[in-house]
Amino acid sequence: MPLPLPGIYLPVNEQSDTSKICVVMVGLPARGKSLIAGKAMRYLGWVGIPARVFNVGNYRRSNTPQPQATFFDPHNEEGERMRRAAAQAAMTDMLQWFKKDQGVVSILDATNSTKERRKWIAQECAAAGIETLFVESICDDEDLITNNILEVKTTSPDYKGQDPELAVSDFRKRIGNYQKVYETIGEDEKSYPYVKLINVGSTVIINQIKDYLSSRLVYYIQNLHIKPRSIWLSRHGESQYNLTGRIGGDSSISERGEAYARALPELMRKSGIPENTKIVIWTSTLRRTIQTARHLKADTGFEKLEWKALDELDSGVCDGLTYQEISEQYPEDFKARDDDKYNYRYRGGESYRDVVIRLEPIIMELERSENVIIVTHQAVLRCIYAYFMNIPQENSPWMEVPLHTLIKLTPGAYGTDEKRFKADIPAVSTWRGKGTSATHQEFPAGGH
Amino acid sequence: MPLPLPGIYLPVNEQSDTSKICVVMVGLPARGKSLIAGKAMRYLGWVGIPARVFNVGNYRRSNTPQPQATFFDPHNEEGERMRRAAAQAAMTDMLQWFKKDQGVVSILDATNSTKERRKWIAQECAAAGIETLFVESICDDEDLITNNILEVKTTSPDYKGQDPELAVSDFRKRIGNYQKVYETIGEDEKSYPYVKLINVGSTVIINQIKDYLSSRLVYYIQNLHIKPRSIWLSRHGESQYNLTGRIGGDSSISERGEAYARALPELMRKSGIPENTKIVIWTSTLRRTIQTARHLKADTGFEKLEWKALDELDSGVCDGLTYQEISEQYPEDFKARDDDKYNYRYRGGESYRDVVIRLEPIIMELERSENVIIVTHQAVLRCIYAYFMNIPQENSPWMEVPLHTLIKLTPGAYGTDEKRFKADIPAVSTWRGKGTSATHQEFPAGGH
Repeated sequence: MPLPLPGIYLPVNEQSDTSKICVVMVGLPARGKSLIAGKAMRYLGWVGIPARVFNVGNYRRSNTPQPQATFFDPHNEEGERMRRAAAQAAMTDMLQWFKKDQGVVSILDATNSTKERRKWIAQECAAAGIETLFVESICDDEDLITNNILEVKTTSPDYKGQDPELAVSDFRKRIGNYQKVYETIGEDEKSYPYVKLINVGSTVIINQIKDYLSSRLVYYIQNLHIKPRSIWLSRHGESQYNLTGRIGGDSSISERGEAYARALPELMRKSGIPENTKIVIWTSTLRRTIQTARHLKADTGFEKLEWKALDELDSGVCDGLTYQEISEQYPEDFKARDDDKYNYRYRGGESYRDVVIRLEPIIMELERSENVIIVTHQAVLRCIYAYFMNIPQENSPWMEVPLHTLIKLTPGAYGTDEKRFKADIPAVSTWRGKGTSATHQEFPAGGH
Repeated sequence: MPLPLPGIYLPVNEQSDTSKICVVMVGLPARGKSLIAGKAMRYLGWVGIPARVFNVGNYRRSNTPQPQATFFDPHNEEGERMRRAAAQAAMTDMLQWFKKDQGVVSILDATNSTKERRKWIAQECAAAGIETLFVESICDDEDLITNNILEVKTTSPDYKGQDPELAVSDFRKRIGNYQKVYETIGEDEKSYPYVKLINVGSTVIINQIKDYLSSRLVYYIQNLHIKPRSIWLSRHGESQYNLTGRIGGDSSISERGEAYARALPELMRKSGIPENTKIVIWTSTLRRTIQTARHLKADTGFEKLEWKALDELDSGVCDGLTYQEISEQYPEDFKARDDDKYNYRYRGGESYRDVVIRLEPIIMELERSENVIIVTHQAVLRCIYAYFMNIPQENSPWMEVPLHTLIKLTPGAYGTDEKRFKADIPAVSTWRGKGTSATHQEFPAGGH
């Protein structure tokens, strides 16, 4: 029976005790497999599904840390044997992880480039009661491949400390060796559920996807793109409620908040906007975010969109109260929230978990989009930030996100680059440490 | 600039003034094109996007109401000319509709089976600033095709009043004529955004989908299946709040509500459940729906799942009040809600429009699912019912959905069959007519 999960809009892990999935990456080297694997893992972790990548290269490196291209020659029997051993070791660990650690989605990151290898994986998984989902990345765009080779593979541990030019040339030879035996997923493999991504998102082929979790994953993967872009995050300018330490509500921004709104266009420019770039502004439907974004004008390349999904975490009966008042009027709730801030749901309101679920379509749309600035609220911003920066759920509700600060995130192949731009406009601190009910507490300098 | 739509989780028509889309169906006769077209239109209408199907057959019938198969022979010049004229007439009306009636998504339902015809459509649309999205339905499953021929086409106006056997034989000849010239969407048509559906959902090929609205449509289409199934809808049993005429809350069911809960398994059996059928129960996270479903047991083939998205419309500050109290305490709101019940949002709560948006993932998952019984709340049930029965948004908030009544919906090729099963257990009426604040008003016998 599926696990009933109260309190979520999309029961993404409804089937956690009936279906476990092994996502099997397929493709030549430098086709973005690890990028897709890493993003899928981050997405799953963010929606609360235990997911882990098993990278066969890491297993191979334990014996052969820096092999030359000849190691991957299909006629090299010793190389072949060691690579098979690495695949076997990854499989063993993976099956253990499902069994002992309640894993739900594993991602087997390797070339898995022959029908024979894929058949073996499908059989091993089937024997352990694990569904497979093959994700093949095909790329015939030479620029894309070259970029992948240059950007990604010269940073690979396989070539650490080596001359980058020699590394690239050796890596091209390695790809050549894989090409000799590579078989795309074929007509005779129609019984496998699979997705083929051709040139990352420009064409997608989907075959036999049945269960809900696979369908969500496939939808996520089909929305990915690799165009360079940035995402800017900002809280609204200081609000009237911020001044009095009240939470929730729909108050206007303060005088200092308005100063931040006026400073925002210049702060954006300072952060670096590529020329002739259209930037879409997403705000919530609440006054303080719309007011904060109002000086980012259409004639300088900005477009606006309001999303109810970006509204602040609903604090239910506590809406409009100060933390002091909450601790007095609802002492048990106040403590319960401190004990598990991620899961605590305000009476008649929401938890961080609820917010993550309603933000899921926002993340999906962010993956589809290019340059976006999101002007939203503390809790919502924490959740979006946690997705991009891979912050564990239990930590995200305690992160400090100061007012009057613009965060610029630039996703790259191996993570997201972050820069912060502080406007020189004072604002109250709205950060609250565990166990306190101070109205305007300063974030401890040492971090947390 | 995209239209800012306050108050929705997914701004599905965010681009309504920048992108208009013509969905171009492609495929031989009896491949389920009209079924897909009809469902897509219903879905779009439900999420609030003006959509209309233009069926070229209907235009052709105005001149040639009951053609024989020879009419569709590619060598029949007169037939060819008349079919081209029908396509032209549909196109002209469609372009008019975009221009004069603020249409957003048109669906051109025809075989559009040659590259030449598709090129013409793409050019005509491009000239009018309309994006195209080609949806090709390919079917090589003979059983599926035969079913389509028998079920669907013997009811076609083309064969009205004719001998069904002769109709089927003629229709097969007609398909043969189309097959002579049919060209699947090919490599040379890669610049078109398209989806190919192979055997309805078992394999899907997606090419070059860029804008948000197309992406949502494609996701909807890729989730469709045509396995026979039913969907049962029920409100929770009468609740304590129902007894006192209060709205919202999280009260338990009354004694009579419990009697309904006990009667529900038998009511389900009476409604007709195919043998060995697994039925999944979806409830909200509120007590009254969970209690109502509790006698549908796992050992008789039921599985349970709780969805927050199925919780009742949030009545904000009015939660827990009677209509009488609302009309006294918030007279302006009470009137505003009567004036536009679909769009009226309770202070601090939701509108029907908000509920539809949060139900969108539910509808998507329902399309993916087979047999499901949904035990939920009046407003939520109205919205789901409106989707299946194609009820206009402005009417759905006023529909009567009595307590202690099971509704069985069985989707078919040309609409949804509805049967109602009333448990013989009295309950208060919770229906309220426009302009009244009666606690327990009876629905007028004449209906509306």
